[in-house]
Amino acid sequence: MNQKAVSVLGLGDMGAALAGALLAAGHRVTVWNRTAAKAEPLVARGATSADTAADAIVASELVVVCLLDYDSVGQVLAPHTDVLAGRTLVNLTNGTPGQAREMAAWAADHGADYLDGGIMAVPPMIATPSAFVLYSGPSGAFETWRTVLDVFGESRYLGDDAGAAALQDLALLSGMYGVIAGALHAFALVRSTGGSTREFAPLLSEWLQGMVTWPVAAAEQIDAGDYGENVVSNLGMQAAGFANHFIAAEEQGISAELLRPLHELMQRRVADGHGHEDVVGVVELLKR
Amino acid sequence: MNQKAVSVLGLGDMGAALAGALLAAGHRVTVWNRTAAKAEPLVARGATSADTAADAIVASELVVVCLLDYDSVGQVLAPHTDVLAGRTLVNLTNGTPGQAREMAAWAADHGADYLDGGIMAVPPMIATPSAFVLYSGPSGAFETWRTVLDVFGESRYLGDDAGAAALQDLALLSGMYGVIAGALHAFALVRSTGGSTREFAPLLSEWLQGMVTWPVAAAEQIDAGDYGENVVSNLGMQAAGFANHFIAAEEQGISAELLRPLHELMQRRVADGHGHEDVVGVVELLKR
Ligand SMILES: NC(=O)c1ccc[n+]([C@@H]2O[C@H](COP(=O)([O-])OP(=O)(O)OC[C@H]3O[C@@H](n4cnc5c(N)ncnc54)[C@H](OP(=O)(O)O)[C@@H]3O)[C@@H](O)[C@H]2O)c1
Ligand SMILES: NC(=O)c1ccc[n+]([C@@H]2O[C@H](COP(=O)([O-])OP(=O)(O)OC[C@H]3O[C@@H](n4cnc5c(N)ncnc54)[C@H](OP(=O)(O)O)[C@@H]3O)[C@@H](O)[C@H]2O)c1
Repeated sequence: MNQKAVSVLGLGDMGAALAGALLAAGHRVTVWNRTAAKAEPLVARGATSADTAADAIVASELVVVCLLDYDSVGQVLAPHTDVLAGRTLVNLTNGTPGQAREMAAWAADHGADYLDGGIMAVPPMIATPSAFVLYSGPSGAFETWRTVLDVFGESRYLGDDAGAAALQDLALLSGMYGVIAGALHAFALVRSTGGSTREFAPLLSEWLQGMVTWPVAAAEQIDAGDYGENVVSNLGMQAAGFANHFIAAEEQGISAELLRPLHELMQRRVADGHGHEDVVGVVELLKR
Repeated sequence: MNQKAVSVLGLGDMGAALAGALLAAGHRVTVWNRTAAKAEPLVARGATSADTAADAIVASELVVVCLLDYDSVGQVLAPHTDVLAGRTLVNLTNGTPGQAREMAAWAADHGADYLDGGIMAVPPMIATPSAFVLYSGPSGAFETWRTVLDVFGESRYLGDDAGAAALQDLALLSGMYGVIAGALHAFALVRSTGGSTREFAPLLSEWLQGMVTWPVAAAEQIDAGDYGENVVSNLGMQAAGFANHFIAAEEQGISAELLRPLHELMQRRVADGHGHEDVVGVVELLKR
């Protein structure tokens, strides 16, 4: 086992899971967190606690950053530009493509390599086969550190544009939030009858299972720019039926606000003359 | 095989699939559609085309209705109350619990049994093992016609409240529209970089596969009314990260309108002091 020195900045739920996975893999781990107490369980497992973020950066060539957002990353790193040279920063904080590119440029200005990453897992999944992490940035830096990074989950490298990982991360998260929004509305409806959401949930899961490959068929249409082939659920019918969600919400005394924007887009698309086509064409209205 | 007389009112994509499945199963099928030409392919397969909806109702004890919405059902059935007695109406038109209960009462007034149904399939899935149909209404009527109805897909009986099928149908559909909304946003984002949605789609499907059982865990929390146990992705962090969707949409020149209501609810829930809890608690804000 090739033991490396790795520092982890940020010991929230995710940072702590990352540091724990590195320790479990036998690396020499230095940790730092704004609220120092969060380092204690990791120190008990063999980590070294750095007093300052600068000390943590100095301690290891590989510095993994996992903070709330890019504002906090800026606040933590900006005072320590003098110790960045020669380091590889791997920023696993959620952000945007633009934020990632800006930080890559900033890191380069201070002599550091920069990899951006998007963790596609919750903390308990870290270091299990279900976790994967998207990376983008210079391939040399990725190859150098890949075996260490593989500790977190399957590493998927998306190329040298630092913004690529953030873009796909956000795209996947919007898929996730779609599921969450739809399911929360469903549960509100079931609850409004006094029904048990626990009894209903397996049916919803079974139904969502049938939706898993929907994006694959939808993407064919989008890439082809053709929403009118073999339509079996025309948008006009769907937009008409969608109104039932609002009537039912009214009947049941719940808010249907989570569903409203999709209905508005569907109606606009019908008004634009696409009622005989597939709902997938709604994607055209999301362009600015 | 026990051949029955069955009439189908409405030969849109779904009604035509239902009539076709009944024909394939060897039943004597009478069809009617406002636009008569849609009956032709079914007549070629052995169906009888009725000149009026009344004729179709008279032709069979079992009358399956599959029209655009309850308004069209009302328009089609209301003039023919004199021929309804002794019939069983199975209404597979999408509607609300209230609409279903109202129509059940109206059918009873005219001496007809009424079953309400929600088809959980697209037309090409009808009569395949992937299709299921939710039914509610008098159990006697359901048991009488169950073997015929099983032709469409697995029949799932939800009890004698006529509104039950519509409620669960809408709940499942809101789950489906959540997936669609989330995926369309994801595709808009991927497209905005010039990327191929087709190349991205398998990753999104894989990711959604990991979300399929989310409702089961969420329902435990909802039924327990406790959103604060074993939180690994706190709502405060998620609400902060969610802002990145809007910044990225701005950067990429797309509209993030599909994601806005969930973010607003998340922020309200954080403001209410639940930032340390799970996102599932947002369901509490959907009560009126
Ligand atoms: N949890 C997940 O399921 C998950 C999944 C994928 C990705 N992520 C991403 O991972 C990152 C961390 O998430 P998390 O779950 O660990 O969040 P968390 O438990 O809420 O922890 C937030 C971390 O950020 C630190 N922080 C916040 N503001 C700061 C500031 N101004 N200066 C210095 N430190 C600051 C906190 O320090 P204190 O302890 O001092 O408050 C803490 O270490 C986020 O970008 C998140 O999107 C999380
Ligand atoms: N397609 C699906 O994927 C799917 C899945 C599950 C449930 N459903 C439900 O099944 C029902 C039918 O859907 P579909 O896909 O068959 O829709 P469709 O292809 O658009 O057909 C609509 C049907 O309703 C008829 N209709 C509309 N307004 C009418 C009126 N005022 N009077 C008489 N007839 C009228 C149409 O007659 P004309 O031919 O004369 O226009 C046609 O037969 C809807 O409630 C839908 O929600 C559909």
